[in-house]
Amino acid sequence: MKVGGKHYRTIYPVGDGGGVEVIDQTRLPHEFALVQLHSLDDAVRAIADMVVRGAPLIGATGAYGMALGLLSDATTPALEEARRRLVATRPTAVNLRWAVDEVVATVAPLPVAERAAAAFACAAELCDEDVASCAAIGEYGKQILAELARKNPGRRINVLTHCNAGWLATVDYGTALAPIYKAHDAGIPVHVWVDETRPRNQGASLTAWELGQHGVPHTVIADNAGGHLMQHGQVDACIVGSDRTTAAGDVGNKIGTYLKALAAHDCSVPFYAALTGPTIDWTITDGLAQIPIEERSADEVRWVRGRTALGEVVAVNVLPEHSAAANPGFDVTPARLVTGIITERGVCPATAAGLRRLYPEM
Amino acid sequence: MKVGGKHYRTIYPVGDGGGVEVIDQTRLPHEFALVQLHSLDDAVRAIADMVVRGAPLIGATGAYGMALGLLSDATTPALEEARRRLVATRPTAVNLRWAVDEVVATVAPLPVAERAAAAFACAAELCDEDVASCAAIGEYGKQILAELARKNPGRRINVLTHCNAGWLATVDYGTALAPIYKAHDAGIPVHVWVDETRPRNQGASLTAWELGQHGVPHTVIADNAGGHLMQHGQVDACIVGSDRTTAAGDVGNKIGTYLKALAAHDCSVPFYAALTGPTIDWTITDGLAQIPIEERSADEVRWVRGRTALGEVVAVNVLPEHSAAANPGFDVTPARLVTGIITERGVCPATAAGLRRLYPEM
Repeated sequence: MKVGGKHYRTIYPVGDGGGVEVIDQTRLPHEFALVQLHSLDDAVRAIADMVVRGAPLIGATGAYGMALGLLSDATTPALEEARRRLVATRPTAVNLRWAVDEVVATVAPLPVAERAAAAFACAAELCDEDVASCAAIGEYGKQILAELARKNPGRRINVLTHCNAGWLATVDYGTALAPIYKAHDAGIPVHVWVDETRPRNQGASLTAWELGQHGVPHTVIADNAGGHLMQHGQVDACIVGSDRTTAAGDVGNKIGTYLKALAAHDCSVPFYAALTGPTIDWTITDGLAQIPIEERSADEVRWVRGRTALGEVVAVNVLPEHSAAANPGFDVTPARLVTGIITERGVCPATAAGLRRLYPEM
Repeated sequence: MKVGGKHYRTIYPVGDGGGVEVIDQTRLPHEFALVQLHSLDDAVRAIADMVVRGAPLIGATGAYGMALGLLSDATTPALEEARRRLVATRPTAVNLRWAVDEVVATVAPLPVAERAAAAFACAAELCDEDVASCAAIGEYGKQILAELARKNPGRRINVLTHCNAGWLATVDYGTALAPIYKAHDAGIPVHVWVDETRPRNQGASLTAWELGQHGVPHTVIADNAGGHLMQHGQVDACIVGSDRTTAAGDVGNKIGTYLKALAAHDCSVPFYAALTGPTIDWTITDGLAQIPIEERSADEVRWVRGRTALGEVVAVNVLPEHSAAANPGFDVTPARLVTGIITERGVCPATAAGLRRLYPEM
């Protein structure tokens, strides 16, 4: 998508193939800065520090991270060690494991000297596939919004989203936001309620920023506000992303997603998760019991980063000095609360049968 | 309750009766500062700017605000004007209207020269009544926590609360936190999950601060986290306050309360609202349709106040420059999601019959 009128992907190779460039998402929305990754260490740090985040982009960065690691040591022990380190960075994201394993499967049979180049090619292919998948999600999801617009002529269609599952979370287009971009570009009058998404504020920092760059009308709200808006008919649909979805349709996503799904269910608002095939973990069916939830640093609750009236970007402590904080990073929305899952292959009910119909080969 | 070992109420007359002193709650948790109110203007501003907040404390400040106004002009037109200005500050809080009307009813029949002194006496009496009511809520609520402790020997009892309905929201003890203080003081091992309560962070700023001052174990969480904790058995009960409760038991409270009530219901966690009689609006029965919801400034979403690493208290903008924000201040939790209402007269179901049994005279 575009930044200041110029098209960007979120990750792409640079120079002579010895590095990749990514957007430093920790500095948005106050500063648009690109950073280069040149080693496995760089990639591990970029994922762990959330310079890159979002399940598909983490996967893409993991794949390129493997390639960068193989540049300096392509032996089998080094390959295994690179895999282990990358997968350990974010335990909830299943795309990461999938993407890294795709690279391992591609390069392991090859001679050591050919592995790095093959890994770069594999990572590039995964990125192109992700872009195509997100574009397809956009087309399928657009039909849902078009139908809502048809039923409600003459007024805007309000979509609530949580966290950032936009193009910044993927290689391009996004998952949850792809239908919104496609609808907006098709002239459907869509407006987005953007949950700010504490504690890291990915909604306020990233979703609002990318929607603004693309010219999509949107309004940021506190995470607390969505239920009230749904009670009063001000939300036509919720669309969120997912970090890991079970084969039975339980949706693991950013902490707080479950609360919005409960409100949507209570208020008869359709609730969709938009995700690409690699987000589905076919090995598990009970999300609450089987999706590991990353407990992140309490400092993310304690410190809020923003720009002062004088233009300086600083972090401020919002807690009393001696109070503790806890920070579970994700929650699981049971399939019973999910109206449908929007994938690159179409929309299906959040059930084992629904997902299996779209992915019969799994 | 105590601050640094010294007992305080949140509002009390000072000097020769020409003013009242309050805690400036906008400066907590980083600074404990007292400010004096000497006029109707001071009282209106203190309520509107949330120097004082919390339904019962707003009521008490409204009553004293009437007295301060009458000091300079006690004629009947001035009395009416003072009433009008105070009630307009916070449309959701029913205690405010109730307290101001109590003063009006007390002083209107009196000669103009006697009105101010009578208003101060009336305000002081309302404060003493509030303290007694909150203490009684604490005793009734403590029995609920004691029962949970009896059923779960050898482990802490986890109570989740939203916003601040502690002693800072009342004249003393609090509503939602009164049972926690009473239980803690009685040796029941209680631990509180404190929702930070965006956008104004009353949980992180006020609830965490006052629990810390009293030595009650607590952990601050993002508003998004409570549902996940309930899904995993880490919450034994929710207790919240209320700004206005209908005669049928619908609970108007800080934005986001409804989301926690939905999660509690979904996870079979008991959900209580703790409130004093004047919070009940006997004239309405449909909270969603009849409780007015204050739309507050978008700046509360945009700007977050905290302390930098260097110790300076500043506000930071967390939104992109051109993004809009919306800020509904309250929501309504339907009575069907409320396990019980804890009042100064006992605990009752959140039903018209339940409330009527406790308040047969209404």
